[in-house]
Amino acid sequence: MDERRGKTPPKRSSRGRRSVSQSSTDSYSSASYSGSSSEEDDVSPREKHQTNAKGFSDFCVKNIRQAAFGRREIEIAEQEMPGLMALRKRASGDKPLQGAKIAGCTHLTAQAAVLIETLVACGASVRWCACNIYSTQNEVAAALAEAGYPIFAWRGETEDDFWWCIEKSISNEGWQPNMILDDGGDLTHVMFKKHPHMFGMIKGIVEESVTGVHRLYQLSKSGKLTVPAMNVNDSVTKQKFDNLYSCRESVLDALKRTTDIMFGGKHVVVCGYGEVGKGCCSALRGLGAIVCVTEIDPICALQASMEGFKVVTLNEVIRQVDVVITASGNKNVVTRDHLDRMKTGCVVCNMGHSNTEIDVDSLRTPELTWEKVRSQVDHVLWPDGKRIILLAEGRLVNLSCSSVPSFVVSITAATQALALIELFNAPAGRYKQDVYLLPKKMDEYVASLHLPAFDAHLTELSDEQARYLGIGKAGPFKPNYYRY
Amino acid sequence: MDERRGKTPPKRSSRGRRSVSQSSTDSYSSASYSGSSSEEDDVSPREKHQTNAKGFSDFCVKNIRQAAFGRREIEIAEQEMPGLMALRKRASGDKPLQGAKIAGCTHLTAQAAVLIETLVACGASVRWCACNIYSTQNEVAAALAEAGYPIFAWRGETEDDFWWCIEKSISNEGWQPNMILDDGGDLTHVMFKKHPHMFGMIKGIVEESVTGVHRLYQLSKSGKLTVPAMNVNDSVTKQKFDNLYSCRESVLDALKRTTDIMFGGKHVVVCGYGEVGKGCCSALRGLGAIVCVTEIDPICALQASMEGFKVVTLNEVIRQVDVVITASGNKNVVTRDHLDRMKTGCVVCNMGHSNTEIDVDSLRTPELTWEKVRSQVDHVLWPDGKRIILLAEGRLVNLSCSSVPSFVVSITAATQALALIELFNAPAGRYKQDVYLLPKKMDEYVASLHLPAFDAHLTELSDEQARYLGIGKAGPFKPNYYRY
Amino acid sequence: MDERRGKTPPKRSSRGRRSVSQSSTDSYSSASYSGSSSEEDDVSPREKHQTNAKGFSDFCVKNIRQAAFGRREIEIAEQEMPGLMALRKRASGDKPLQGAKIAGCTHLTAQAAVLIETLVACGASVRWCACNIYSTQNEVAAALAEAGYPIFAWRGETEDDFWWCIEKSISNEGWQPNMILDDGGDLTHVMFKKHPHMFGMIKGIVEESVTGVHRLYQLSKSGKLTVPAMNVNDSVTKQKFDNLYSCRESVLDALKRTTDIMFGGKHVVVCGYGEVGKGCCSALRGLGAIVCVTEIDPICALQASMEGFKVVTLNEVIRQVDVVITASGNKNVVTRDHLDRMKTGCVVCNMGHSNTEIDVDSLRTPELTWEKVRSQVDHVLWPDGKRIILLAEGRLVNLSCSSVPSFVVSITAATQALALIELFNAPAGRYKQDVYLLPKKMDEYVASLHLPAFDAHLTELSDEQARYLGIGKAGPFKPNYYRY
Amino acid sequence: MDERRGKTPPKRSSRGRRSVSQSSTDSYSSASYSGSSSEEDDVSPREKHQTNAKGFSDFCVKNIRQAAFGRREIEIAEQEMPGLMALRKRASGDKPLQGAKIAGCTHLTAQAAVLIETLVACGASVRWCACNIYSTQNEVAAALAEAGYPIFAWRGETEDDFWWCIEKSISNEGWQPNMILDDGGDLTHVMFKKHPHMFGMIKGIVEESVTGVHRLYQLSKSGKLTVPAMNVNDSVTKQKFDNLYSCRESVLDALKRTTDIMFGGKHVVVCGYGEVGKGCCSALRGLGAIVCVTEIDPICALQASMEGFKVVTLNEVIRQVDVVITASGNKNVVTRDHLDRMKTGCVVCNMGHSNTEIDVDSLRTPELTWEKVRSQVDHVLWPDGKRIILLAEGRLVNLSCSSVPSFVVSITAATQALALIELFNAPAGRYKQDVYLLPKKMDEYVASLHLPAFDAHLTELSDEQARYLGIGKAGPFKPNYYRY
Repeated sequence: MDERRGKTPPKRSSRGRRSVSQSSTDSYSSASYSGSSSEEDDVSPREKHQTNAKGFSDFCVKNIRQAAFGRREIEIAEQEMPGLMALRKRASGDKPLQGAKIAGCTHLTAQAAVLIETLVACGASVRWCACNIYSTQNEVAAALAEAGYPIFAWRGETEDDFWWCIEKSISNEGWQPNMILDDGGDLTHVMFKKHPHMFGMIKGIVEESVTGVHRLYQLSKSGKLTVPAMNVNDSVTKQKFDNLYSCRESVLDALKRTTDIMFGGKHVVVCGYGEVGKGCCSALRGLGAIVCVTEIDPICALQASMEGFKVVTLNEVIRQVDVVITASGNKNVVTRDHLDRMKTGCVVCNMGHSNTEIDVDSLRTPELTWEKVRSQVDHVLWPDGKRIILLAEGRLVNLSCSSVPSFVVSITAATQALALIELFNAPAGRYKQDVYLLPKKMDEYVASLHLPAFDAHLTELSDEQARYLGIGKAGPFKPNYYRY
Repeated sequence: MDERRGKTPPKRSSRGRRSVSQSSTDSYSSASYSGSSSEEDDVSPREKHQTNAKGFSDFCVKNIRQAAFGRREIEIAEQEMPGLMALRKRASGDKPLQGAKIAGCTHLTAQAAVLIETLVACGASVRWCACNIYSTQNEVAAALAEAGYPIFAWRGETEDDFWWCIEKSISNEGWQPNMILDDGGDLTHVMFKKHPHMFGMIKGIVEESVTGVHRLYQLSKSGKLTVPAMNVNDSVTKQKFDNLYSCRESVLDALKRTTDIMFGGKHVVVCGYGEVGKGCCSALRGLGAIVCVTEIDPICALQASMEGFKVVTLNEVIRQVDVVITASGNKNVVTRDHLDRMKTGCVVCNMGHSNTEIDVDSLRTPELTWEKVRSQVDHVLWPDGKRIILLAEGRLVNLSCSSVPSFVVSITAATQALALIELFNAPAGRYKQDVYLLPKKMDEYVASLHLPAFDAHLTELSDEQARYLGIGKAGPFKPNYYRY
Repeated sequence: MDERRGKTPPKRSSRGRRSVSQSSTDSYSSASYSGSSSEEDDVSPREKHQTNAKGFSDFCVKNIRQAAFGRREIEIAEQEMPGLMALRKRASGDKPLQGAKIAGCTHLTAQAAVLIETLVACGASVRWCACNIYSTQNEVAAALAEAGYPIFAWRGETEDDFWWCIEKSISNEGWQPNMILDDGGDLTHVMFKKHPHMFGMIKGIVEESVTGVHRLYQLSKSGKLTVPAMNVNDSVTKQKFDNLYSCRESVLDALKRTTDIMFGGKHVVVCGYGEVGKGCCSALRGLGAIVCVTEIDPICALQASMEGFKVVTLNEVIRQVDVVITASGNKNVVTRDHLDRMKTGCVVCNMGHSNTEIDVDSLRTPELTWEKVRSQVDHVLWPDGKRIILLAEGRLVNLSCSSVPSFVVSITAATQALALIELFNAPAGRYKQDVYLLPKKMDEYVASLHLPAFDAHLTELSDEQARYLGIGKAGPFKPNYYRY
Repeated sequence: MDERRGKTPPKRSSRGRRSVSQSSTDSYSSASYSGSSSEEDDVSPREKHQTNAKGFSDFCVKNIRQAAFGRREIEIAEQEMPGLMALRKRASGDKPLQGAKIAGCTHLTAQAAVLIETLVACGASVRWCACNIYSTQNEVAAALAEAGYPIFAWRGETEDDFWWCIEKSISNEGWQPNMILDDGGDLTHVMFKKHPHMFGMIKGIVEESVTGVHRLYQLSKSGKLTVPAMNVNDSVTKQKFDNLYSCRESVLDALKRTTDIMFGGKHVVVCGYGEVGKGCCSALRGLGAIVCVTEIDPICALQASMEGFKVVTLNEVIRQVDVVITASGNKNVVTRDHLDRMKTGCVVCNMGHSNTEIDVDSLRTPELTWEKVRSQVDHVLWPDGKRIILLAEGRLVNLSCSSVPSFVVSITAATQALALIELFNAPAGRYKQDVYLLPKKMDEYVASLHLPAFDAHLTELSDEQARYLGIGKAGPFKPNYYRY
């Protein structure tokens, strides 16, 4: 549900034509890193004929027989996704998505399944595919198919499979989608390009990723966006919770599972002090690491300084550090030159939004030897015996090698669901053919859905206080530009 | 330079007519809390005739002979205000404020003096008064007068003095101001009401406080704002640095100087988890206090929860806590009912933006006895012997009882200076008759001026990286809605 | 190498006769938790005939062909064990253990292999077995056998196997051990009981575990200890590093790998605030958990209070907490009654020194259903649907479900090696037939061996300073009772 | 009550003859630093004749009329000294010091007054003097005199006064002390040398300071100690609470009150990582400082490393740091050479146990200019304009410039009271003519007295658990060598 979770394209970049989805090729392992590759049969799902217990067969997954295991994973996720579950409960009466026909394209994980089943509980019907060829949890896809949803996704799709699955989610006999939930913009793009008539019938698009949002703004600028869209990526719930806390929670875990490294006293450099970098730095310091930071933006650099993280250039510290973590959203932040100067045993990994931050390709040269020591762990050996420990080949290490807490994902997923409800039910004219941020009141609502999990008790304003502040007692409580 | 520093009016509130400046009556002690009141002679400065060493007499301060001491205070402040000093150095050549005539109204502290002398170094001429009747450092005002600036300010002005000083800063023979630097909006208001012709000649207003900004937006809405204004209060440098870090730095200090309290293991409730509350919570936890939080806004409440601060209502915890700190910007957050239920020895104080948060008036009843035990420390005694320790009578405890680091003030002051430069030099048409936020590039510039103090080294983008990110190599580095 | 790592017996307890080693039955998974059980062939190693590449066959391991994989694990461990490697280097010249014949009984892990090969590099010859039937890393045992060491250990030994392996390490034709390195006291006990003549030839015993040390003190009290022994368990390097930091480093990891739990805002109760509890509390707070503590000892309780951890009884909080962690070294700290009152979803695990802290047996009753959801993770279901998540069936969760950093183990292992060197080389009369703590100077030496890993630079005393302090320039720097 | 609080002599050093008490000359300001010197009349108290309201005149204080103010200070201290107050309550019935005649010599502060009145409540009679010529709170001494206690102490005693006061506390007509409570050993020394017969009647000595304990051990070694003595300095309550937490609580405060420094991002070097250094480092990091450490002891250095404080030599970092804090207990840790290389604006201060750590004398040379900018704050100017900020002329900055929390002092004071009770009531033969540490059970009792202040709830052992652990249900809970 997160651009950082397995998507490559840059922020605000303009790039050339691409015939296939670049984002779909970024590898993505299962939610729960096991350290070993699961072996599965080699027959393509598209060549299999599978039916669920009720004889339903409008789906394409790896193995429908894994459904029971997938269902348990979904149930476990449900317990950590209080926002969606509360929404499901509240919406089960008035069915705010009754009549909605959603074409969905997201990472297909247990958490996504909780979202999908929440949308259905709200009255929607869905068709769904994966936004990434590596990220599907096959057993979860099976569980959804077993429950009777048209799911088209498996781990290890080919490029051709990828587009086929998207196509299956868009068009089917007797199915005219009226809403899109997208992560990366590929489904939107396909419908826009290949099914313009269908696209004209859409009431609203909800997009989560940096890339997808970028594409929507491009469409909007060029006057081609004929439908209102919600930019979920930049909502406060995504930026200040999903990005910050999912990284704070997962960075230690990803490093431990792969390297069993000790953190106490380790010198770590984190490249980038945005939300992702902030989360990493906080977690690492909590276990006694000595953390420094690189930044291009003086404001973020000043924040790092005030928090006691020394701001350095990578060149200054590269010879001394024990761990290098990229979290910049940029490309070639760690170059071959840096890699050449690291000390032996240095661990290199990426927490940023794509696999471009570390110039991994530069390591694929004859004089260097690669040793795969564990799943997702490569030792790269220099001729003089130096050994660099590269994790997940530079892809997102927390997604590749650890898990992301369902609770944090729940915050973003609830935001997506509310965005769908808002667009689907908005009176004519409230939203034009443009890209919108979710109204603050809905951000606040999403947050409120997650407070009971902490047994957190909000204070209510008195009438007098509300008057004094000049706001409503039920919010919104802050101006739109408030930074949190 | 901060609304929180001694101003009462609420955010976004609408209140009735007020004949005198309410904000000007909020007490404010010196930057450096001494615990004892300095005794000075009782003659009103307006009745004295004073001249500086060069025979200059266009000023009105408490005692020109304190100038040397004030000069040392200014010099000490200069060392902690690298942003202003860098600006002074860079601007001394091209004099970007040559021709600017600034009417200024701010707290008149050593830090303000550094700002004033920086503006002069940039080519401006100034007339200056205080925005608060208690906050002037008399020795600093003397030092400025000695240096030849028309300063009209002393600690303990009467209401009449207050308006007289403003008037002296606005109008003088042969002086037509063309810029306003205001904190609270009183000078702006006077010029607007009493000197409309003069007001018509103003090129720009820079306003720092919540209240002043609120007034400007009101003017703008009603179509009466005839000049562009900069809202410095909501710039990232103010919100994310001045508010957050000046509170993190001063809350412990204020409590220690007044109560000698031990923090380890103390139960503290912080009312409000905005930037001020975040700063307080972080500092208190750093010394081993057990901190909980009250909030009205579910998003801030969720942030507190994720950071491990339990979100409670004040009613739940009021009987158990050792310290109550208000930081909400709201009124009557701590009521007499709460005060009645606190345990004996409980410390109550306010870090928020005005003196309305604790209902101190409710304690002025016959059955309660007040004992002044130190400067700014009252023990309020209940009939049963219960003793509540009230700090600064509910005014801002960090300003009343400790000091605020010059460095943090420097960030805001540099923002004010740049806002003046920008408005003064902007080509016609760039700014309309409206209220603006400082362009992000200037926020970034302000931040960059403060990095050398930390020996922080920024990383520069390569051309390729800038292209990839779709931004300029020199910034701005983030979209306007970025939250930091 | 740590009592806490897989041994059951209590501290200072007196228990009845035990015919088999109770400690040997505590389950212990591999250093690196994989979440899946590895399947191996079922033939007992004792029935196999294996030889290494050089034809050597005086060993008994699971599968000699795993040697290459084990060797790599040893090499990885070597990089994180600078103390042992430095010792190996320094001792390779003067061979301080030349002539030593060591009978060893420890957990047989990669870290133990580094210790064993260090002892050999110091001139010793060894025979070795495992002190726990579950803890052997088979591939490491294979690597050691391949290198020509007589190793008798595999994961999943029967009780009979266990004693057979010990016997093989003690007696062999032409082999008279003169030193013992023990963890738990089983090898010592067997030699003392069954080979009294051999025992009479021993020059010294080095014992690491709480239990083994307890047994030695018992022997000493009853006048039966005929040989000097070193108590490594209570050395500062063990207590203040191994116990504290190995837990700080592993508690988050163990919980994440098994439950993917989010820590931010979670309510956790840690039972016991000794070194283990201190490590857990520090790590959990670092990620935003709200941590409270139970204690029986008022001094430790006061420490917890000063650090901001609320000291409670388990009864007070059991209905609210999300996670219960035992770290007390006591038994039945979490009872069925507590388990009955936990809320659904509560996670229960043990970081203490044995599997007695949680009364797991009380959960094996007909009305409760156990579901194994992952390796080492059981869901226990109450009739009303309540679900408790029990980790590692109450055994040490960090050892069962995560890894312990080699670096911390290195500190204890270097202490063991130095203790052997000291006892082996001590002039007659320095040590009597008693139990000793390692001389402080050696503790300091062990610490100094680990400083280069942090690039830490010690300051040297001047002559004048040493005189002033009344200590030698090379230490020892503190009195024996110093607490660190 | 703390060696660190104003005493010069080194640990374990042997120094030559000294005719006057060196420790008595170390300056010591009032508990609550005001930044200004209070002016008092110049008549020596010895020349005044004063009587209290009841006509009692067996005392010598500055001004008996300050008694009311002193009484309030004592009452405030009582509220933060729960251990002593609980002891007072419990002991008021059985009067465990009935018949005790205590000659006391300590810092004479509000906290000491609470101790003295507790001893009296336990049945003791007392005579009291100050152990330091600067540390007496005159108003507190007045309050005690007003209450009828023979007190001989004032701030600013001459050396002659100092010895006269001690003499007055020892000998008076009809007064034969039988217990000594000493801090520094001066009273003990005088009685031993000048009143050997009286000394022979003493039942026990309780000594708190490093120096005094050192002297007792010397006496004991040379066979001259004819009475049992308790070493309170090395009890766990002193080392792990008073030293650690009083420094953690006071270091920020002392720096803020004197320099108004901002901590965020400041580079600080702390010389020494014992309990004092640990407390400083923890507090500084809590506010965002970047802290490094110097150490001579590899064990403490390894602790610092694991906690994420880089261990450096002072020479490496001296040119870069913003603040230097000594906490080593050593001499000349900061030399003129270091001072010459510091950057301008560097703050230098001492938190260690005496004023020897910074070579302040080396700064009193003609080429350097001293400017006193505030009380306890000197700017030392180099010929090139460099300015070093020296606090309290190298004396203990937390005692000179801030306050120490009464709560922490209460822990040590309660230990002193219990040590007196133990020695006074011990059956013949329990204590020989030697120096003892307080029995662990009493340490635990002292701790337990302070838990209610935190509303901390201890867990009780069941019979079964106590048996399992092999300890009594009421403790002691740990072996003597336990480090906490």
